[in-house]
Amino acid sequence: MTIDVVHIGLGPLGQKMIRSAVQRGSIRLVGAVDTDPAKIGKDLGAFCGIGSLGITIAGRLDDALRGKSAQVAVVTTVSGLAAFEPQLAPLARAKLHVVSTCEELAYPWRRQPQLAQRIDQVCRHHGIACIGTGVNPGFLMDYLPTVLTGLCQKVTGVRVWRVQDASVRRVPFQQKIGAGLTVKEFEAKREAGTLRHVGLPESVDFIAARLGWQLDKVTESIEPVMAEQEVKSGYKPIAKGMVRGVYQIGRGFVANDEIITLTFRAAVGEPESYEEIRIEGEPAFSSRIAGGINGDLATCAVTLNVVRSILQVSPGLKTMADLPIPSWFTASP
Amino acid sequence: MTIDVVHIGLGPLGQKMIRSAVQRGSIRLVGAVDTDPAKIGKDLGAFCGIGSLGITIAGRLDDALRGKSAQVAVVTTVSGLAAFEPQLAPLARAKLHVVSTCEELAYPWRRQPQLAQRIDQVCRHHGIACIGTGVNPGFLMDYLPTVLTGLCQKVTGVRVWRVQDASVRRVPFQQKIGAGLTVKEFEAKREAGTLRHVGLPESVDFIAARLGWQLDKVTESIEPVMAEQEVKSGYKPIAKGMVRGVYQIGRGFVANDEIITLTFRAAVGEPESYEEIRIEGEPAFSSRIAGGINGDLATCAVTLNVVRSILQVSPGLKTMADLPIPSWFTASP
Repeated sequence: MTIDVVHIGLGPLGQKMIRSAVQRGSIRLVGAVDTDPAKIGKDLGAFCGIGSLGITIAGRLDDALRGKSAQVAVVTTVSGLAAFEPQLAPLARAKLHVVSTCEELAYPWRRQPQLAQRIDQVCRHHGIACIGTGVNPGFLMDYLPTVLTGLCQKVTGVRVWRVQDASVRRVPFQQKIGAGLTVKEFEAKREAGTLRHVGLPESVDFIAARLGWQLDKVTESIEPVMAEQEVKSGYKPIAKGMVRGVYQIGRGFVANDEIITLTFRAAVGEPESYEEIRIEGEPAFSSRIAGGINGDLATCAVTLNVVRSILQVSPGLKTMADLPIPSWFTASP
Repeated sequence: MTIDVVHIGLGPLGQKMIRSAVQRGSIRLVGAVDTDPAKIGKDLGAFCGIGSLGITIAGRLDDALRGKSAQVAVVTTVSGLAAFEPQLAPLARAKLHVVSTCEELAYPWRRQPQLAQRIDQVCRHHGIACIGTGVNPGFLMDYLPTVLTGLCQKVTGVRVWRVQDASVRRVPFQQKIGAGLTVKEFEAKREAGTLRHVGLPESVDFIAARLGWQLDKVTESIEPVMAEQEVKSGYKPIAKGMVRGVYQIGRGFVANDEIITLTFRAAVGEPESYEEIRIEGEPAFSSRIAGGINGDLATCAVTLNVVRSILQVSPGLKTMADLPIPSWFTASP
């Protein structure tokens, strides 16, 4: 099976996505769009740091698809749902299914129900399916825990830890999580909203919706992880008393009962990276991936894997709960 | 959400299923069928060791459903597909979706394609969906590994270990895996086919099909686990040189390349119980559930969880790859 894809959005993640897609025999890139005049007209492959792909970056979808057709649009443009909405219309009119890394699209039904409903209607009207996915939100802190509850006769709590030693990650990631800042600088960035990993409340909502839990409250906290001694494993030394990363918790409550706890912790000098899911109930158990999962690589992987699953569902705004297994797939011989 | 269920087959697993179903607010039992004259006419709850449910065990589906309706039939009768086929017809005529623990139904398309096709046609003709599931086959050694490949840009191998210390399991299970036999007795039972855990080749086929791998060969081996010293943790002491359990491996090959390895090991005195999945590729990672998952409890749980997902798919013979997440669910308020 080979699926024809047009790509929208060529920021750092979009460029990675292009490189991932090209390595796959099961995905055929037919075109790419970015609105940045500095990118339009360039060769897609050369721009993404690989050999020429014979595809010119277009400024508009019409230009990208001239004389070509595609089944799915992969969209890596924005994190917010309001910004995503106007981008959907031309894709829907072109009858393209949409798989996007837009974090708020992963589960918008509780937080932004009217926007979600409008997007759903556009999809149904044009007979296409649309989904927000990625590694987080989209997989490790929502989809996978919900899958694991399938083993249970009873579930009373879902706890997830995604803990990363940021030392091995690229410099912009270390900067994004606040490594090397003073507490004051961290707080200023937190106020400005630039530190926040987007998607934890959406992950809480996803789990609750699929399990049938009616949440009374969803909260989100963002705190600095402090260096208790000098840390030298990152892109620059971090002195004692400085910030070495971020600690973010999403919680879901029924009355005063905290039944969902999602902890995201990324810091330079973290002793261990891991993904851990604990399901409380019958049976109670923990599932652990030691070493953790690289976010950039896996976000591209999950997105490209969902490109197949989205072909197998009815029209509308979908979530990962609705899809046939979004597994990796090879091109059939 | 409450789903009306009729249950077919009241052997040990069926009785457990009844007890599990009764504990759930989200499942309403409306009737139960068994062909054993010794069971027909008895009160279902009393027969299953719980209080009266006001349901009389019927010998035929018509009798069980008289004046009632159901959406799904849960079938715990047989392991083999040939024996399952004739049981499907009356259920399909009654427009009941079917969720069964029949192991060979979990993925029959490669090993028994004609039978699978006939079952698929019956389902489509009557507008119902049918699936084989459980913890194994159905979840831990096929569905969950396939889900985890969704994190991957590339997959080159799937390895699964399901390792159980049988000391804590019920006596019939310890006997079933050959604990306490001589090697000669073990081999006789292996020849007779009574030792075999049914479903490993189906699990191999399931993974390969969803990933798009065309297997050239699927093999299955069954070997005894020997006591290297006296083992006293089981239902009876096992002397050195006797069998303490079974060691079963399913393998899938492309040419001479073993790309799928599923290892099932259940033995009295096994030092550790665990579920481990290793995905080889990009990224490569291992996921582990320390302590393992109790098979009886989880088979009932998975089956009852699939009862919801089966309502959300189109008619036909389905596999776990086709379903929306078969997660646990609570009755909505």
